[in-house]
Order: sequence, then structure tokens, then C-alpha cells
Amino acid sequence: MSRIITLTTDFGEGSSYVAQMKGEMLAVAPQATLIDLSHKIAPQNVREGAIFLAEVLPRFPASALHLAVVDPGVGTQRKILVATWRKGAVIGPDNGLFSILFQKQPPDQIYHLNHSAFGEPTPTFHGRDLMAPAIAKIAQGSNPLDLGVLTTNFVTIELPIAVQTVHGWRGEVISIDSFGNLITNIPGDRLKATSLVQFAGAQIEGLKRTYGDAEPGQLIALIDSQNRLEIAQVNGNAAKKTGLQVGDVVSAQTPDASPQT
Amino acid sequence: MSRIITLTTDFGEGSSYVAQMKGEMLAVAPQATLIDLSHKIAPQNVREGAIFLAEVLPRFPASALHLAVVDPGVGTQRKILVATWRKGAVIGPDNGLFSILFQKQPPDQIYHLNHSAFGEPTPTFHGRDLMAPAIAKIAQGSNPLDLGVLTTNFVTIELPIAVQTVHGWRGEVISIDSFGNLITNIPGDRLKATSLVQFAGAQIEGLKRTYGDAEPGQLIALIDSQNRLEIAQVNGNAAKKTGLQVGDVVSAQTPDASPQT
Amino acid sequence: MSRIITLTTDFGEGSSYVAQMKGEMLAVAPQATLIDLSHKIAPQNVREGAIFLAEVLPRFPASALHLAVVDPGVGTQRKILVATWRKGAVIGPDNGLFSILFQKQPPDQIYHLNHSAFGEPTPTFHGRDLMAPAIAKIAQGSNPLDLGVLTTNFVTIELPIAVQTVHGWRGEVISIDSFGNLITNIPGDRLKATSLVQFAGAQIEGLKRTYGDAEPGQLIALIDSQNRLEIAQVNGNAAKKTGLQVGDVVSAQTPDASPQT
Repeated sequence: MSRIITLTTDFGEGSSYVAQMKGEMLAVAPQATLIDLSHKIAPQNVREGAIFLAEVLPRFPASALHLAVVDPGVGTQRKILVATWRKGAVIGPDNGLFSILFQKQPPDQIYHLNHSAFGEPTPTFHGRDLMAPAIAKIAQGSNPLDLGVLTTNFVTIELPIAVQTVHGWRGEVISIDSFGNLITNIPGDRLKATSLVQFAGAQIEGLKRTYGDAEPGQLIALIDSQNRLEIAQVNGNAAKKTGLQVGDVVSAQTPDASPQT
Repeated sequence: MSRIITLTTDFGEGSSYVAQMKGEMLAVAPQATLIDLSHKIAPQNVREGAIFLAEVLPRFPASALHLAVVDPGVGTQRKILVATWRKGAVIGPDNGLFSILFQKQPPDQIYHLNHSAFGEPTPTFHGRDLMAPAIAKIAQGSNPLDLGVLTTNFVTIELPIAVQTVHGWRGEVISIDSFGNLITNIPGDRLKATSLVQFAGAQIEGLKRTYGDAEPGQLIALIDSQNRLEIAQVNGNAAKKTGLQVGDVVSAQTPDASPQT
Repeated sequence: MSRIITLTTDFGEGSSYVAQMKGEMLAVAPQATLIDLSHKIAPQNVREGAIFLAEVLPRFPASALHLAVVDPGVGTQRKILVATWRKGAVIGPDNGLFSILFQKQPPDQIYHLNHSAFGEPTPTFHGRDLMAPAIAKIAQGSNPLDLGVLTTNFVTIELPIAVQTVHGWRGEVISIDSFGNLITNIPGDRLKATSLVQFAGAQIEGLKRTYGDAEPGQLIALIDSQNRLEIAQVNGNAAKKTGLQVGDVVSAQTPDASPQT
């Protein structure tokens, strides 16, 4: 049976490293269906990768396999993690890359990969030398138990959580998409259409339903497709317009409250 | 049977949005063959997307399915269009994105998607919530008639057409490729090898057959692989060299005519 | 049987040219499995393409087919080359693009493609008009002998080779990855852990095993995953940090030798 294997890395589009991993996977599992998810996670940015994977992986069929490599600790003592659900599995460095995914979708089993099954890896490219062949072996029917050791220890990373205030919510920008839309960690379903959104001295009155509900060029706030407060510029780039970056504070006030200064 | 589904968007390479759509499609049609065409259509640039699709889609097998999302009106009253030919189909926002394709290859049937078959979509991501599952259902054998309503109304966009002048042709730059080659809307088979190509005060005498027929660095005019007048710099970037942008005027004179000033 | 066909070009991510080639290949071989390797080879940079292909292609299953288009001489007298091994094949312009691969993995047969089997190509896009349909025909079972003429003549390109000096090795930067890591042509297994690496007036004392063995921001030297001396900045971009470019000299001294000034 042809298994789906997705790829997510910080190697950059067109990277020889991604191409080499594809070769290794197809050499082991020639009938696998490889699906590129992203190779543009910011270099070494485990947190960005973790947010991406939690957004994306749950939408795939339960039987899909997923390889993710954002691995600044490659070749050190950090372990390689395999997590399995009834049908599917993920593999990647044990550095928190799957932390947020695991909160949404706790795995059935977690393993640390046993390197010895794969020959001596180069110290700088475990994605190619260990993770790619391991996930391909799983695609071919290998039991993860034969590739690793069951564990309950794995690395998690702290993600900023929006907090409820007297007047509403206080959170921050957690990602910026290719349109320049600013995604925050403030839960959309807890806001009102009349909320006042504030950041870096500026503010937006009220939430729009969608981009086309305001004029081109206008800065708007809305609930994004993952139920998060988003700041956008209609047909423009809110990140450039506002100068906001990941980590900058955003708050949302209920309309009857006085704006904080 | 494994169906081909291509993807064309303005979401950007490595976008979580593209990855989410892939997940949704494979969740419905796990055996589908997904083919990335482009995720670098300029944001909200329906015209650029329309030109791209008309260049590319006719080259695919007639049975292929195509998803295209350049959708500034997402969540507003704009409809979602499904067009079918004997074997294949396209889906995308009804905003003119398929206009030019339809001129080259008129569809047999056009439908407006009936949202009710797909649960309540988020207002900002119909690509994931409606279009991806709909095209995947068609891949699985669903009849478009069960997903939408037949229509003869759909949005078209106006494209600039080159006009014949006393001395030749007058058109404009319609796209710029990644090499910086300037593609115009002037029909190549109507030009002579001795034509004089003029733009923004500068001019090029005569057409070359191909890039290697002139010296590196030289600015040349030639007929591109889609029978359009193209301005290129050999081993260089004509867009940077000339400063020309999409929409800028280009004309081609027959050799016995006086250049217009 | 579904055959793997990989694609490597200098057309740019999201290029209409890549998408058109995919259409042509699938029109001939609808069951082929297309695998994008890179479309970000620098424009017209045959040498960069040749290095990439030699790194990547040997990792694929022996039966894979490979299309590579970095083709500044398109439409001129340059020929199109098909090389075959017992099971697999490559196709691309005969301009040296496969030179380095052939050194690592000499092909069994080399052919020059016979254009006449494919109708009249446009002079500027042989990737679409000749190479894509030819490799797709091979995927469908065509014998290369029916598509071309056996030859022993083909173009090779000169690659810089590191030279052994009295005190160690002298080479140069041959590529820069998306992290900004500087890859040299100095063979890693000939160096000692205590080697002194020098370039453009600066130097690094000793080799690290991997990135995590030094502090963030530190400039380090190490052996890369292809046994080449690499200069990296931990969690940073060595190319930006050092200003080094492809072609710049790098040398490695054994520790008991005096650094050259």
C-alpha cells in the first residue's frame, strides 16, 4: 500500500538537503507518496515549526506519516522522537517540535529512535541519515518497537498563552503569514464583534467578518480560520503597515471598558 | 483510480494554508496525486493567476482536476465556481480567475458550489473549508451536480489586448518571469524578424530566435514559447535592466515604418 | 508501473515553466510520480546545478528518472543528452550539467536526443517541448535507442579541486546553503580536529563535530554531511557574517604548521 509521508523543514525551498531526504525515503519506500508541507520554517525556529505542525497535521488522514526537521541540536545528545497513533506516526528531533501537536492530539506511544539500526550517521544531518530512512521503514511496515525504545520523557516547549484581563484579553503575535497577516494567540470565540483591538499605540475598533468587508488598504481585526484574533490590512500587508513582529503584545478590550494606556 | 489534483494559490511557498488544504484533500481522497503548480501568484492578483492558469492547465491530461485559490473576496457574496469538461474539472472563486482559460478551452458545464454540503466554513478560508473538500469529492467520483447548481453566469476579467497600429503592434508587459524576462501580449507570429521593438524611450532592432543567439548582457527581443513578444537580457534580468513593469507599453514596428516618438 | 521522475531547474519556485513541464510529463505518463528537487538553481548556473545533481541523484532508487533543466544554450546547436544506467536515466541539456554526477556514477549509455520524434520545438523552451515528453516516454517504457543516437561525446565542465599544500589544503567555497553555511571543496576526512581554517584574513581554530558543540553566534568549522570542510555560524548565517562568496579561497592548515599570512 502506498503511504503518505509529509515533509516539514527549515532547510529552505530548493535545498539540496530536502532533495537528499526525498531520495533516501524513496530508496527505502519507492511507492511512498511524498507531500511537501513547508521548507520555509525560519532557520532553527523550533517554536515556529511547532505552531505550523499543530495547525496542519491534524488535517491529514490518520494513517499519514510525517517527517519534521528543525534541528539545531543535530548530532548532540538530543534524541530523535517517534510518536505513533493507531495508524499514523511522526518523526523528528526531540526538542519540542511536536509539543503543541501532542496537546491537541496526544499520541498513543512515544519512542526514542535507536540509532544502531541505521549505520553511523553524519553528525550534522540526522534528517537524511536517520529520520528519513526510519519513517520510510515505518511506511514499509516496520514496527516502531523494532526501531526505538518506548519512553514517557520528551522535550516540551513553552508557548505564550493569552491571558484574560479585567477588560478582555492580552496576548501576542505568534506568527505572520505570507500575506503579512498578524496571527495572535487570543481566542477568537471569546471576543465580541465590537471589541477594541490595541497594539503598539494604535487600535482597531470592532472585528470584521472577512477581508472583503472593508476597503482596500484598511487595517482590520478579524477571527482567523483557526479561531485566533488576526490583524490584517485589506489587500495589503499588515506586518509592514504596523511594524509588528512575532512576540509583540496585542490586546482586545470589550467595548464598555476604557482602553488601557 | 488515482486522480491528479493540481494546486495554484497566492498563499506563498511553505504556507500553512497550502499545507492545510493538502491535508483536507487527502483526508477525502487519500489516493489523489497532488501536484503543486504555483503558490507564488502575487497576493490577491487575480489577473496574474488567470494568465498563469491559461498557460498551464491546457497542458495537463484532460482528466486532471485543478484547484486555484486567489480569493480576495473570500467570505463575501462572491460565489465558488466549478467548471467541468468531459473528464476534468476546475474549482476556485468566481472572480475571473478562470476567464482566460475558458476563452481557450470553453467548459462543458459551469456550476456554483452549494456550500451546504460542507458544513459551515470559516469566513476567511474557503480554499480549505469548501474548495479543497469539493474537488477531492469529485476526485472520489462525486457528480458536480450533487455539489452545486448549474449556471451560465460567471465573472470575467478584462485583459489588455494588443492592438494593430499603422506601423505594427502596440501592447504591454503582461507578466515577468523569474529570470526577469518581460512577456508582452503582442502576438509573435504577426511580427517580422526585422521588427523594431520600442518601450520607455529605448528600442531593440530585430528579433532573435533564442537567448544564445546574442552576447551575454545584451538586451534582445524574441518570440516566447507561447507565441508572445518577449524582451530578455541574455544571462541577465531584463526587468531590472529596463525598469519595465507589468502594464508598461511595448510596441513593435515593421522595419519600413518610422519609429513613433 | 508508476515511475519516479524528479525535476531540477533554474526556473524559480512557482514558475509557469515548471508547471507546464509537469503538465507535459503527466499528459504522456499520467501515472508517473513527480518529485520536485529544486527550482532555485541560480539562473543559467550550470555549475551550481551540476554540484546539486551530484549530491542528490545518487540517493534515489536506481530506477528513478531525472529531468534537469539549466539551459542557457536552449535552441542553439547544443544537444540534449540522455544517459542511462541499468534501470534509471537522466535527461537535460548537454552542457556539463551531469558532469560531476557522471564522475561519481558513470552511465552505461549516453545518447543525444533525436528532436524529430517530438515535433518542432519552440526555440526557447526545450525543457517543455523535448525533454519533458522524452523522459515521460521513457517512463512509459520507450527505449532510449528509439529516441536518440548513441554517443561518446558530451560536454564536461571544469570544477575547482582543492590542492594539498605543504601545510594542509587549499580550496574554495563551492556552494552556500539556505542557512548561509559555506561549503568548500576541501575533503573532510583529510583534516585533523585541530586544523586551522583560514579565509579572507580571518581564521577558525579547530574543527567542531556539529553545530551544537559551540555557542550560538560562534563561527565554526566542521565536516559537512558530504565529507567537505564547512564554515558555519551556530544558529546564524556564516555567509553574511564572513562576506565569503562562492569561489573565495579557504585553506586548512595542520596545527604544527605556521599560519600563512
